[in-house]
Amino acid sequence: MKNLKEYIREISDFPSEGIKYKDITPLLLDPEAVQETVAQFIKLLGDVKIDKVVGIESRGFFFGMLLAEKLKAGFVPIRKPGKLPYKIHAESYKLEYGTDILEIHQDAIKPGENVILHDDVLATGGTAKAACSLIEKMGGNIIQCNFLIELGFLNGREKIAEHEVRSLLSY
Amino acid sequence: MKNLKEYIREISDFPSEGIKYKDITPLLLDPEAVQETVAQFIKLLGDVKIDKVVGIESRGFFFGMLLAEKLKAGFVPIRKPGKLPYKIHAESYKLEYGTDILEIHQDAIKPGENVILHDDVLATGGTAKAACSLIEKMGGNIIQCNFLIELGFLNGREKIAEHEVRSLLSY
Repeated sequence: MKNLKEYIREISDFPSEGIKYKDITPLLLDPEAVQETVAQFIKLLGDVKIDKVVGIESRGFFFGMLLAEKLKAGFVPIRKPGKLPYKIHAESYKLEYGTDILEIHQDAIKPGENVILHDDVLATGGTAKAACSLIEKMGGNIIQCNFLIELGFLNGREKIAEHEVRSLLSY
Repeated sequence: MKNLKEYIREISDFPSEGIKYKDITPLLLDPEAVQETVAQFIKLLGDVKIDKVVGIESRGFFFGMLLAEKLKAGFVPIRKPGKLPYKIHAESYKLEYGTDILEIHQDAIKPGENVILHDDVLATGGTAKAACSLIEKMGGNIIQCNFLIELGFLNGREKIAEHEVRSLLSY
């Protein structure tokens, strides 16, 4: 089994001072590491039938799309405001300074569907929580929230503790 | 064979008046249509060994990532300014009003590698041309530029006519 952490590059002071950014692009460059990552995500899930994989713009699109394909599930992008062209549901959430908004298409999830939420990084959990709210508003069953990377010291999983939260790499 | 156009939703006056936006999210929702799309892209390529698939932020990430996985190639995101954390090459290009910039990581492509450029839509070709310039600056061989959708009336393929340009759906 590959040690996937070897494919994560730490960048100091990006996007702002004091932050050690986790750059996943070296992992994306290596097809074997990508396959291993997908296999590990699939193993976390077990046997339950998944109808939709929701990926958060834009780094959640990478493995969200691969997971959807492997699970024979539909893929649903959650996007920043103004990007989705059709009828949407919107959810605002707090940032350190100010607020932000996430949007999802109204036809993306049907009531009762089994849904995975995916993003590359679980940090403070604000984005993930807003995404979960959108999915639940639409009647989706959140089977799992999964992340490539979890920044444990930010306690993001507490914000979405009513769901199963899994991550492949912890920092 | 599925008619993939049935999965493209046309939205009038988005993002601005007079534009008939092609919404690919209904296609993403249907796992069989996604598989058919990937199979059609693979068929366009033939037998040549591909080292890297470059996808343009952010809708080029969807099928770019799936193509890379199928081809056992690395995936390279080209992103808007300030998003990539490592050392970058940048290329500016003209918009109708003003200019925009695309960025790529300096370690993303090695000289002599065989590269596919992928995006969801070929419109005026400005973005695709800037992306091709970045790839060529790094010494990549552009084997094909492929697009899910081509807006033929905008003549985008003329801007990248020195490359093989293929698209699955023409409007």
